[in-house]
Amino acid sequence: DEKSRMTEVMKFHKSKVKLDVGGWKYTTSLATLTSVPDSMLGAMFSGRFHLEADESDGSFFVDRDGQLFKYILNFLRDPVSFDAPLDKETTRDLLKEAKYFGLENLVELLQDDCYHFKKDAIYLSFVS
Amino acid sequence: DEKSRMTEVMKFHKSKVKLDVGGWKYTTSLATLTSVPDSMLGAMFSGRFHLEADESDGSFFVDRDGQLFKYILNFLRDPVSFDAPLDKETTRDLLKEAKYFGLENLVELLQDDCYHFKKDAIYLSFVS
Amino acid sequence: DEKSRMTEVMKFHKSKVKLDVGGWKYTTSLATLTSVPDSMLGAMFSGRFHLEADESDGSFFVDRDGQLFKYILNFLRDPVSFDAPLDKETTRDLLKEAKYFGLENLVELLQDDCYHFKKDAIYLSFVS
Amino acid sequence: DEKSRMTEVMKFHKSKVKLDVGGWKYTTSLATLTSVPDSMLGAMFSGRFHLEADESDGSFFVDRDGQLFKYILNFLRDPVSFDAPLDKETTRDLLKEAKYFGLENLVELLQDDCYHFKKDAIYLSFVS
Amino acid sequence: DEKSRMTEVMKFHKSKVKLDVGGWKYTTSLATLTSVPDSMLGAMFSGRFHLEADESDGSFFVDRDGQLFKYILNFLRDPVSFDAPLDKETTRDLLKEAKYFGLENLVELLQDDCYHFKKDAIYLSFVS
Repeated sequence: DEKSRMTEVMKFHKSKVKLDVGGWKYTTSLATLTSVPDSMLGAMFSGRFHLEADESDGSFFVDRDGQLFKYILNFLRDPVSFDAPLDKETTRDLLKEAKYFGLENLVELLQDDCYHFKKDAIYLSFVS
Repeated sequence: DEKSRMTEVMKFHKSKVKLDVGGWKYTTSLATLTSVPDSMLGAMFSGRFHLEADESDGSFFVDRDGQLFKYILNFLRDPVSFDAPLDKETTRDLLKEAKYFGLENLVELLQDDCYHFKKDAIYLSFVS
Repeated sequence: DEKSRMTEVMKFHKSKVKLDVGGWKYTTSLATLTSVPDSMLGAMFSGRFHLEADESDGSFFVDRDGQLFKYILNFLRDPVSFDAPLDKETTRDLLKEAKYFGLENLVELLQDDCYHFKKDAIYLSFVS
Repeated sequence: DEKSRMTEVMKFHKSKVKLDVGGWKYTTSLATLTSVPDSMLGAMFSGRFHLEADESDGSFFVDRDGQLFKYILNFLRDPVSFDAPLDKETTRDLLKEAKYFGLENLVELLQDDCYHFKKDAIYLSFVS
Repeated sequence: DEKSRMTEVMKFHKSKVKLDVGGWKYTTSLATLTSVPDSMLGAMFSGRFHLEADESDGSFFVDRDGQLFKYILNFLRDPVSFDAPLDKETTRDLLKEAKYFGLENLVELLQDDCYHFKKDAIYLSFVS
């Protein structure tokens, strides 16, 4: 119902985390970042490590591609309904990010998709 | 006439709301956000819940994809003349956002469009 | 000559206006915004209405799509040499913005283009 | 050698100029902006005119399309190795900017490219 | 293991560097910037030169294209798994940046790719 749903939304609000990923600013929740405990972000925000926030805007710094991180965050927000990008280059580059961040399920999902891209390419070379 | 139109525009001005959707900053009006009362944003900004604005810029935080939120907001601004994105991937991903935000009319509109995409794909496999 | 041209450029400088269109920040001149007097922006910035600028950055708020507003502004800067976007979806969505802002000449120009898109589609269905 | 190259880099550093082109923020050097003396930017930053910088961020305002200005700046940074955009619409719209800014060499380069686009279009209508 | 990996991540945190590349803000680490010692960035951030950071945000200024710098940074972060962009124009323009920044390995990689693009073009002219 509405009340329980809003309670969940409010819970997220209490744990807002700002990230600076290669210069791109993201806002997410601690729950999202730690949803895969054995991933790199899961470890980083587990509370076991001391992270220093930026003095000016309170963000935590990650030295990776800022544009692709959008997909990493959307995967963490809702892994069940996540779909791979349709663009070949984005999928190829996201796969490297998924490996870096230690997200095994995302790696598997993307490798499957790469496979389909190759299959499409073969198929297209026949029909054209 | 001009005067009544500008009065409406001014009304919007009085209720400016800043949102931080996954790191993307949006500015809209309370009227736009609450235009679908039984949606998630409608509930969130109904006045029944206490929301805490960001101390630095006064924005309210939503832990979702910031790029796709553009379409959510355009739908809320003018649902009658809203058209689905033509891009397959964007439509697919927007459908998930529409479900999350509880916008039934947008879900229906997009599912119709998905159907047309599939039809197009079948059609193209015949003509190529 | 250079001097008269720079005088014109300087004139624009004196009337810089900042806009916050749905979260996108634009900078333009009062001359550009009021170049079509019977349009919505022409009325809004005519001096007949009291507008409140944002306290933090001095921008004026418009509750519309921030990405498409780029075209609105380019049309107002130089309507004679303005060309419609080549992308079908952008043209379709810009038409709605042109209507909202009451820019009759832009509406006409875009509706012509839509017509050509449809003609292209018919043509393509024959040649493919 | 390294030292002379870094000396050149350092020289640029000393003359950093911030621009606000229609709301897009650019950072460049005075050397880049004045590299074509008889262009509009060359005149504007020649020292013969008094420009007022924005009080909050020190930027100079130009009332033109902010996205296309990227190409103007890249042309000024290195006119010899500059290549026209491959996208038809961008080339078309950049041509207008090149004319506005009085960059004759860029105008010529782009008009050549437009010519090639038309040739391509004619060619494609034959092979399809 | 986790601990050694996080130690590495923490090391990066200590040496955060902000860059302003033509108006685009990037955040990276000193380790990334100096990973190719004989490159221009390697020299610039070697400690042998005095760089002045921007007073307002502490960034270091580079007078080059801000959008393409994303690829330069991703190459420096992980040269082994770097892949060239699939887009022809981006590859063409990135090659110029790679030369400017003195990244020989990136230049070679991109020139190979350009070659493949030309091969594709020739191939397409046969099959169409």
